Amino acid sequence: MKLEALIVGSAAGGGLPQWNCACRLCRLARAGDPSVEPRSEACVAVSADHQHWLLVGASPDLHQQVSENPVLHPAGDGRGSPIFGVLLISADIDGIGGLLVLREQQPLQIFAPRAILQVLEDNSVFGVLDPTIVKRIVVRESQPFDCGFGLTSTLLPMPGKVPLYAEDPLAAEPASGEAYAALVEHEGRSILIAPACAEINQSVRETLGRGDIVLFDGTFFTDHEMIEGGLGKKSSRRMGHVPIEGPDGSLSRLADLPGRRIYFHINNTNPILLNDSPERRRVEGAGFEVAYDGMELRL
Amino acid sequence: MKLEALIVGSAAGGGLPQWNCACRLCRLARAGDPSVEPRSEACVAVSADHQHWLLVGASPDLHQQVSENPVLHPAGDGRGSPIFGVLLISADIDGIGGLLVLREQQPLQIFAPRAILQVLEDNSVFGVLDPTIVKRIVVRESQPFDCGFGLTSTLLPMPGKVPLYAEDPLAAEPASGEAYAALVEHEGRSILIAPACAEINQSVRETLGRGDIVLFDGTFFTDHEMIEGGLGKKSSRRMGHVPIEGPDGSLSRLADLPGRRIYFHINNTNPILLNDSPERRRVEGAGFEVAYDGMELRL
Repeated sequence: MKLEALIVGSAAGGGLPQWNCACRLCRLARAGDPSVEPRSEACVAVSADHQHWLLVGASPDLHQQVSENPVLHPAGDGRGSPIFGVLLISADIDGIGGLLVLREQQPLQIFAPRAILQVLEDNSVFGVLDPTIVKRIVVRESQPFDCGFGLTSTLLPMPGKVPLYAEDPLAAEPASGEAYAALVEHEGRSILIAPACAEINQSVRETLGRGDIVLFDGTFFTDHEMIEGGLGKKSSRRMGHVPIEGPDGSLSRLADLPGRRIYFHINNTNPILLNDSPERRRVEGAGFEVAYDGMELRL
Repeated sequence: MKLEALIVGSAAGGGLPQWNCACRLCRLARAGDPSVEPRSEACVAVSADHQHWLLVGASPDLHQQVSENPVLHPAGDGRGSPIFGVLLISADIDGIGGLLVLREQQPLQIFAPRAILQVLEDNSVFGVLDPTIVKRIVVRESQPFDCGFGLTSTLLPMPGKVPLYAEDPLAAEPASGEAYAALVEHEGRSILIAPACAEINQSVRETLGRGDIVLFDGTFFTDHEMIEGGLGKKSSRRMGHVPIEGPDGSLSRLADLPGRRIYFHINNTNPILLNDSPERRRVEGAGFEVAYDGMELRL
């Protein structure tokens, strides 16, 4: 048996197309133009036996994502699921919203750091996942833990910010908060999933070096993408995401990273989503791949 | 301009197929069998001008629902939406979960009774809808209010129960809670949307008589559908839904209701979902219609 990952969602929050966006990329995706594939919000399913799957992240698109990926369909003729657990690495809506989809009395394990479990505790709507059936398991950062079914995971800290809904509206800058990458391993092979990283320092570079495959924060191409597009007032870094471009950007800072590097958690404003854009050619020319929904990775 | 409604989702919580269900209907829907159309969780869009739409209910499937219904797509080339507001009539996950989809700095109005707004207040995740942009407006039951764009709505009380996540796990029966029907009117024409009704008493019959079109709770066909299918331990009534069948069921109790009667909010266990089932023929023979995703209603 080998470690495998299925990218069930590759976009940042909002997906592509985003419900209220008519930017060029959203319009093309909505029209079914072959130059842009629609993408749902970020979620990765990982398995060591092709039968039991751990979700890393639970996006609000999860109902559709399960429907569209046959390996995640229940077998037999009653209730059940190949999804045995969910590892939460972000308390942002696009990292936890899909838990509400996973109701319906299905036994599951939720693995998460204490701060994210506290968000679930503080928000009674998540009580729809009956705690006698859906176990919540505290995970400590940097300590490998056995998820079952051949998978070992480790939460690795990343520079980040608090979730949007937890920001202080009066503060000029958001509090720096915990963001995590997930390292998932099986028999010495590993995939590292890092959808949010506010800057790439030496510690981050070392962390990313631990993955045979690295799915890295590809949210924005430039730091001012949202502002220049007239779609928002915040820079990429302000939103907790290092941009791809620039001297401190990920393209430059991760150029010499060993292993497969795949941009993931891509915002609908990012021109790398356009199959034939100069930006797409630039990242591919530098040896990076661009994630898409349904992408299969095997190790 | 005329009142029109678009059923963007016609299923009960879980939809069809449900993520963790391999019952006969879910299997058929998943396989693309023409005898069962897939259905998303209940939501109705209403408009008096075909340009501005009020959503009644916000289901977790909302991202996909907006994508699949062109009248709900943003026009122009920036951010925007034809959806100007959301009327909440249930605090169940399938009635509010989609609010998390409606983030992204889009001006909106949320109309809801105080108890449902309190749920949003108590659950910080809904803070992702910035209250300076997304207005929360308290609606009082039985008092018509102007939603804008030609629509007047009235919340009408229905016999119901508290949401699942708010039930006392030690109580034998759930507390009776507020359920509502929404009456939406334009120039004397009306549509009444009642996805949850635990029993049909005389008051309910009078309320339902106010709609030219009535979308009524079609969750379960029989009271013991979940139990007999081995899919749950609760009766239909215990879950806050009067069954279709039986002497006190809706088929019998609403047989003489004037106006169009359409079953809506249909659970994936309900055999009326099967196009050629005896149960489907029975409800249609009695003059009821069965809602489907994309169904258009004009008055």
